[in-house]
Amino acid sequence: MRVTKLFTKTLRDAPADEVSKNAQLLIRAGYVYKEMAGAYAYLPLGLRVIEKIKQVVREEMNAVGSNELIMTSLQRKEVWEKTGRWDEKVVDVWFKTKLQDETEVGLGWSHEEPIVEMLKQYVQSYKDLPISLYQFQTKMRNELRARSGIMRGREFVMKDMYSFHRSAEDLESYYNQTIEAYKRVYDRLGIGAETYVTFASGGAFTKFSHEFQTICEAGEDVIYLHREKNVAINEEVIDEAVKELGIERAELEKVKTAETGNIFNFGSQKTDEMDLHFTDENGTKQSLYIGSYGIGITRAMGVIVEKMSDDKGLVWPVNIAPYQIYLVSIGENGSKQADALYDELTAKGVEVLYDDRDERPGAKFADSELLGIPTRVTVSDRLVEEGKFEVTDRASGQMKTLTKDEFLATIST
Amino acid sequence: MRVTKLFTKTLRDAPADEVSKNAQLLIRAGYVYKEMAGAYAYLPLGLRVIEKIKQVVREEMNAVGSNELIMTSLQRKEVWEKTGRWDEKVVDVWFKTKLQDETEVGLGWSHEEPIVEMLKQYVQSYKDLPISLYQFQTKMRNELRARSGIMRGREFVMKDMYSFHRSAEDLESYYNQTIEAYKRVYDRLGIGAETYVTFASGGAFTKFSHEFQTICEAGEDVIYLHREKNVAINEEVIDEAVKELGIERAELEKVKTAETGNIFNFGSQKTDEMDLHFTDENGTKQSLYIGSYGIGITRAMGVIVEKMSDDKGLVWPVNIAPYQIYLVSIGENGSKQADALYDELTAKGVEVLYDDRDERPGAKFADSELLGIPTRVTVSDRLVEEGKFEVTDRASGQMKTLTKDEFLATIST
Repeated sequence: MRVTKLFTKTLRDAPADEVSKNAQLLIRAGYVYKEMAGAYAYLPLGLRVIEKIKQVVREEMNAVGSNELIMTSLQRKEVWEKTGRWDEKVVDVWFKTKLQDETEVGLGWSHEEPIVEMLKQYVQSYKDLPISLYQFQTKMRNELRARSGIMRGREFVMKDMYSFHRSAEDLESYYNQTIEAYKRVYDRLGIGAETYVTFASGGAFTKFSHEFQTICEAGEDVIYLHREKNVAINEEVIDEAVKELGIERAELEKVKTAETGNIFNFGSQKTDEMDLHFTDENGTKQSLYIGSYGIGITRAMGVIVEKMSDDKGLVWPVNIAPYQIYLVSIGENGSKQADALYDELTAKGVEVLYDDRDERPGAKFADSELLGIPTRVTVSDRLVEEGKFEVTDRASGQMKTLTKDEFLATIST
Repeated sequence: MRVTKLFTKTLRDAPADEVSKNAQLLIRAGYVYKEMAGAYAYLPLGLRVIEKIKQVVREEMNAVGSNELIMTSLQRKEVWEKTGRWDEKVVDVWFKTKLQDETEVGLGWSHEEPIVEMLKQYVQSYKDLPISLYQFQTKMRNELRARSGIMRGREFVMKDMYSFHRSAEDLESYYNQTIEAYKRVYDRLGIGAETYVTFASGGAFTKFSHEFQTICEAGEDVIYLHREKNVAINEEVIDEAVKELGIERAELEKVKTAETGNIFNFGSQKTDEMDLHFTDENGTKQSLYIGSYGIGITRAMGVIVEKMSDDKGLVWPVNIAPYQIYLVSIGENGSKQADALYDELTAKGVEVLYDDRDERPGAKFADSELLGIPTRVTVSDRLVEEGKFEVTDRASGQMKTLTKDEFLATIST
């Protein structure tokens, strides 16, 4: 993509009311636009990052045999009344509205109840189980405060998955498989080393549920961490967990984190509350065992920005960068050579953002750093004569002068 | 994908309250689930169709230089007040809700005003123009009645595009380019021959706006058509248009249609109402010329179902079918051969839905017809001995007995 054809514009300043670092940077770099606190539009570069994160998650969810679908945002009151969660004293983040005939409807802050309700139409026999379903849904949550940029939105993208099993054992086995799938997701997003499977409250049949907590100064959570033993415990269950795990509290390090994922074992509670059952081999009505598994897609994006950006701007991991290469042309000969290189790379399927603007080099370099594309390739009059390009790594700032063949060899790996 | 791994289940009956043919069929075939009137969840097969339609549209919008982004569903009251369209007497399909501090917000039924408001941050000079932006957005419209299945939703997927220009001529040129892009879309979706560029009311600087009307008995519109002259006129402007075009009303045929797209020339009205301007070469503040271009993604899917299905079920055009091949195994030898063929086709990148269930052939054939996958390949004990497969075309019902090489030759074309 040529910069002259791309809808983007770096801004000198973020809006004055924007206090979070991730949103400030993403707005300045032209990735997002702030519609209101907690609701951001994703401009072309931002949308590309979201889609790449989604694709990583999609591949890993498909790999554990889950099926992608998409539920509705509009939800029925009577479905949520079955579990008492329509009540705003129980769930305080509802956005509600009304149909023309005054019927109250909700906007999906979660899809647990609606998906269980839906399954009644598709599950009758043990032969129909297990089932795992997931979606990328725009969730609506009426947060009292929304000051963490895209890390806590009133409108945000979440992957939520639900699994349905005939026994507690089958659910547990799938639950453990999913923990491994989640680890692969965070590894591929570049935050695996700093994301911990964390003991948290809740969960049926299991004493704890599990959160995936990523170390992040801007995060809203606190966990207690034992790095060597790879044990992490949410503050809310610390007393219970140290006892259970036989760990000394003094050994644990207190760190600020952001919850980038969570998994939850409902046991058979929801099946009974909502009357979803199946018939076993003997014709007996049985309860289902249900698990729920979330990953905040836009939150993960925000956490990555918080953790990896520097004073020059964004720094994207290669796997989720909107483009792999930022190509800069300088001078007239440089432009001709850059045009040719752009065509060659694009034909090879390399994602190149080509800064073909009639701008001074300093402005192009500054934008390339603010945008955070992993590799910058500079084609200048001077180097073209020597048959060379300047190749700069965004994360380390390291610069090499390479011939075209040398450069092509680095990207084919 | 193996049917035993896919979340789908054909149902004998659609819900009793479902009156539209498209939703009845899509529910029975396991493509959609009805959450409430006008709001449908898309199960894995349905989601695949939506994504394929979106991809066709995406390619054609990218080809006219438009940039994909995603706006928010939550919208600010003050943005819509600028044009008087917050008022429910002016726009009667609003869903509105409130933040915790009682601030009223709307749910996007359109994104015209928000995108114009947003452009203020990105357009200052003539150098910033033209701009074309589009999104696939889940629109919310509080329709009084929603009885047309996925053809008229309270929650539905729409591609909306907006273009911004420095002159009426530049807008008109882009507007005409978009008409051609739209024609390519409908051709690729398999409804091009029956979709007409139709004169409709409204539009600034142009006497008419344009709708894309697809002939469809279940449609809610009526147009007057001259097939040979390729002229179509919406009922609402028939008197004006026959005069303008010099056509005899008696020559026109009255047909029922569904509006699958529309394009609209706002002229500079919105730019003035909302105070979006640019500075020209002389430093003078100028108005922008704005166009708006919609395609109902889920509506198009519904229209295709209405037009192409038969008494056995759905019939998908190859371009948007969720899978290309429905593979049926019969008998034990058949299963082994079908397993091998499935692996071979999948490795080649052919999208195969493999009915590997332990079911009687008649049930598999009936489901294959209800699901509407373009080509069915049957591998039976009997034919395997002869080294042959039965290949059936869903649309025509035509059946051929082919060797594997003969069959592979048909799909490589």
